[in-house]
Amino acid sequence: MGETVERPPVWLMRQAGRILPQYRALRAKLSGFKELVETPHLAAEVTIQPVDELDVDAAIIFSDILVIPEAMGLTYELIEKVGPRFPRTIQSARDIDALIDGSAAAEQLGYVYDALDITKKELDNRIPLIGFCGAPWTILCYMIEGGGSKTFSKARRFLYQEPQLAHRLLEKITNSSIAYLKLKARHGADLIQIFDSWAGILPADQYELFALPYIRKICDAIDEVPKTVFAKGAWASLGELNKLNCQVIGLDWNIKADYARSILGPERVVQGNLDPCLLYAQAAEVETKTKAMIRAFDSKHIVNLGHGVYPDTPLDNVKVFVNTVKSFNYSEFSVKVSENE
Amino acid sequence: MGETVERPPVWLMRQAGRILPQYRALRAKLSGFKELVETPHLAAEVTIQPVDELDVDAAIIFSDILVIPEAMGLTYELIEKVGPRFPRTIQSARDIDALIDGSAAAEQLGYVYDALDITKKELDNRIPLIGFCGAPWTILCYMIEGGGSKTFSKARRFLYQEPQLAHRLLEKITNSSIAYLKLKARHGADLIQIFDSWAGILPADQYELFALPYIRKICDAIDEVPKTVFAKGAWASLGELNKLNCQVIGLDWNIKADYARSILGPERVVQGNLDPCLLYAQAAEVETKTKAMIRAFDSKHIVNLGHGVYPDTPLDNVKVFVNTVKSFNYSEFSVKVSENE
Repeated sequence: MGETVERPPVWLMRQAGRILPQYRALRAKLSGFKELVETPHLAAEVTIQPVDELDVDAAIIFSDILVIPEAMGLTYELIEKVGPRFPRTIQSARDIDALIDGSAAAEQLGYVYDALDITKKELDNRIPLIGFCGAPWTILCYMIEGGGSKTFSKARRFLYQEPQLAHRLLEKITNSSIAYLKLKARHGADLIQIFDSWAGILPADQYELFALPYIRKICDAIDEVPKTVFAKGAWASLGELNKLNCQVIGLDWNIKADYARSILGPERVVQGNLDPCLLYAQAAEVETKTKAMIRAFDSKHIVNLGHGVYPDTPLDNVKVFVNTVKSFNYSEFSVKVSENE
Repeated sequence: MGETVERPPVWLMRQAGRILPQYRALRAKLSGFKELVETPHLAAEVTIQPVDELDVDAAIIFSDILVIPEAMGLTYELIEKVGPRFPRTIQSARDIDALIDGSAAAEQLGYVYDALDITKKELDNRIPLIGFCGAPWTILCYMIEGGGSKTFSKARRFLYQEPQLAHRLLEKITNSSIAYLKLKARHGADLIQIFDSWAGILPADQYELFALPYIRKICDAIDEVPKTVFAKGAWASLGELNKLNCQVIGLDWNIKADYARSILGPERVVQGNLDPCLLYAQAAEVETKTKAMIRAFDSKHIVNLGHGVYPDTPLDNVKVFVNTVKSFNYSEFSVKVSENE
């Protein structure tokens, strides 16, 4: 991690998904998204689809961050065009006490480990395999709110009205996530990424009280593999994120490279952060702006979007993005810079 | 604007609304939200309700940012618990050409000016009356997307695929907004606020290309009254916002006071930015954190939340918030600081 390379590596968040015709074809034959998540050979198949189709530099296991609340005792549904819904949510101390946690929760998720085993074998060490989980704050959001929300004001109210219960719940999610990630590493994940999708809705003081400490616990507990922390919208806590025991900081598309570098320093490996909507533009613009981003971060960089790729993104532009990175060469860039001086 | 005061002024975005029992009682008698917006004496009545109930330092005319797209030719509906919906949206150059703009659009909104006239008379100069509009980028979002969205990816795609059409549409929205705000000022608005609710979904380079230039045009065109620009999530463009010809910069709850002051300087009047969810906490915490915020911004500050107050906020806590500000005294604070030194 972080050694000198000729070009940066590249992969896309949500690369295994609707952007690929082979994914849509497979998905059409199934009862729903959960069948795909819970059937190991199918999850493995869609994990490998973008590796074959796009020639990206990493695979990320096809799964969902909501398997953890489900393993803890709250089942979820995925409703087409609406999003996730939890028939039961967390409302009281009793609800929290009733949750399974730690290894007992993680051990429920055999289908994930089986999918990793199959994928690992099929990848045959061609490229690294990434495992992931949701950050405890983001998982709490869904467990309290019961689904997506524009404001997550129920979850946010819970932090203000029941801070001790919130910490108790976050502790249980954290224990479960640690056990889960350790099992993922044991089943072949070469790196893990923690997604804090709802980081940006908390003010910085609350983020540093209710979110960061639990990510820190996870990072400190996982020493088997390198860790990436992607806290979307947490620009105001970037300095605190930089102190975590992790190898990579993921950046969303709102963070300019110079701001990120001013906080993180030149040696921190960053991941991101092209605007996912740029892939709707003309191919030439995709190429120009991808190169500009690589130059702006200036090495120590894993190229990705600043968010998961949107399902209606033209596949040709995804390929332009990946191929632009793969044909980039830092040394040519350096030469050009020197010539201009 | 900006003179030395003993305490900062205070009002709340969305103070005229569901937090007040008298609003809910009136609203229950009506067919819907639009009836309230479009009936001048009712809009005036709910504008004044929070002035009487909360004793805030400013009134803001009860209306909606979507009256502008409607005046331009796209009617909207407000669907209970879902949000706004536009049966027709903008998809092509022809759609844009068909829109009414400028004064012709603004003159459709007689009910707003009538509501201002009535409110102004009933307020009898007790406190200033604020008028507002949506920023052109935010209005474009709704006109393209046809409703709310988590990602506004249709509107964002439009910027990348049809940049010239986007500019043409933004120009028309801008002309209409300028004419509208001039009429608002003529009908008694003492200050105007421009809400860029979806500023935060654009990367900074696009924000500075498609959003800021049109806010700048509005600010430069309106010299009748002072202007507040509230661009939610636009932290990365705060330095650019600071160059606008406006008197106040609104801040959302993600922006720490020290970051804001480091970019904006000590003399810029700012508005905001308490976390709206803090009003779910215990009264003592509301008081402590409100005072801490006032001290952190250290004068040149209009106290407000960092977003519109949420409809289920306990009214008692809204009062604690307002009364904490009203009983605050900068000089006592200075004395205490000196004593501690």
